[in-house]
Amino acid sequence: MAQNIYDDPEFFAGYSRLPRSLVGLNGAPEWPALRAAIPDLRHSKVVDLGCGYGWFCRWAAQQGAAWVVGIDISEKMLARARAATTDAAISFVRADLGRLGLAEGAFDLAYSSLALHYVMDLSGSLASVHRALVAGGSLIFSVEHPIFTAPRRPGWLVDAQGHKTWPINGYLIEGPRQTDWLTKEVIKQHRTLAGYVNLLLQLGFSLSHIEEWGPTGEQIAARPSLADERQRPPFLLIAARK
Amino acid sequence: MAQNIYDDPEFFAGYSRLPRSLVGLNGAPEWPALRAAIPDLRHSKVVDLGCGYGWFCRWAAQQGAAWVVGIDISEKMLARARAATTDAAISFVRADLGRLGLAEGAFDLAYSSLALHYVMDLSGSLASVHRALVAGGSLIFSVEHPIFTAPRRPGWLVDAQGHKTWPINGYLIEGPRQTDWLTKEVIKQHRTLAGYVNLLLQLGFSLSHIEEWGPTGEQIAARPSLADERQRPPFLLIAARK
Repeated sequence: MAQNIYDDPEFFAGYSRLPRSLVGLNGAPEWPALRAAIPDLRHSKVVDLGCGYGWFCRWAAQQGAAWVVGIDISEKMLARARAATTDAAISFVRADLGRLGLAEGAFDLAYSSLALHYVMDLSGSLASVHRALVAGGSLIFSVEHPIFTAPRRPGWLVDAQGHKTWPINGYLIEGPRQTDWLTKEVIKQHRTLAGYVNLLLQLGFSLSHIEEWGPTGEQIAARPSLADERQRPPFLLIAARK
Repeated sequence: MAQNIYDDPEFFAGYSRLPRSLVGLNGAPEWPALRAAIPDLRHSKVVDLGCGYGWFCRWAAQQGAAWVVGIDISEKMLARARAATTDAAISFVRADLGRLGLAEGAFDLAYSSLALHYVMDLSGSLASVHRALVAGGSLIFSVEHPIFTAPRRPGWLVDAQGHKTWPINGYLIEGPRQTDWLTKEVIKQHRTLAGYVNLLLQLGFSLSHIEEWGPTGEQIAARPSLADERQRPPFLLIAARK
């Protein structure tokens, strides 16, 4: 079972103050890139793996999805998600993403934002997603980029000129990484980029698009601190089809 | 036109002394991984992009390929390649990989080892390869890994405990990188991993497998200095089908 860090009080308090928590999808700089990969949702059935506050579920319902299921392991997140909508097309379910028991052929789109790097048995989880999609259905997800998750000691090195460098090591050694992000001892699973892609191919997905996300020039103009993210991508976005 | 560094006397002399030049395919630690992706070559037509000394061309002919075309821009490499075989199934052609004019549907396999990172117009080059493959044909290639090519100053950082770290910067900024490898001012093109993959998908290839190559435990046991390569992958191998 994955660590349920989101129900840790310190983590939850920190997470609640992030722009993506306060503002929703538009508070996440990678959202425009993810959104661009999402097909027309009218009359479609959608599952959101690691739905958090349910921002994406509500957006999907607004786009005309027939029904939307948000899944999360965090009671606190789900309580907020449920309190934020009365839309009968949306339902929230508590479950471990590593132990999904989704109905066969139930969904047109499986979506996941920055959640799958917490899952230990990703192969089992994505096999369940593959079964749960209709033929031609889409899986679209983001995770922390493997370059971001690899290092023993993640954090910028800054030289005398202020140039930033990201210290890679352990890249090919997949497995848990413990970091201090919002609270102590948050455990994420480091996987290589090839690890993600080959798992999808082995499960029978075909790859549609991958993006090693970095900010656009426009985003950097609006928020200059984002410029560092072009030195190494913080997020990996993947779109695949069954 | 790509820089023809292989005809530089200092570079050529250095390259000639590398294990992969002296021993051939088995002198390249990534060869077993590349080989595993190669389909049965009996009666097939093969093109090798950046064939160098022609080791792969000769191997492909030994595997039963009906004919093999080796392409390279370096006169010196081609002279050695031609001198090393009298096999009528093999021919060598001098051409710039950035300006390929391959016949339509002429090949079952396009192969390339550590050459495409020299090509400026990779899109034009791989579009030509796509046209030149039969339906169901394979493209299998290796390049220096984007993590390897990205940095302004490539080279290990070593801490007091001897731990090695690779300094990433400029990863999302694609374009030329000038390094000193075997001689001064060798120019390679840095592309992101997503850049390679999405280019293939846009051209109509489907992705079969990618590998961020690192040494196996057995290889490290035989040659302990290879262990560092698990800290960050030196090579990217990609297999795709038309």
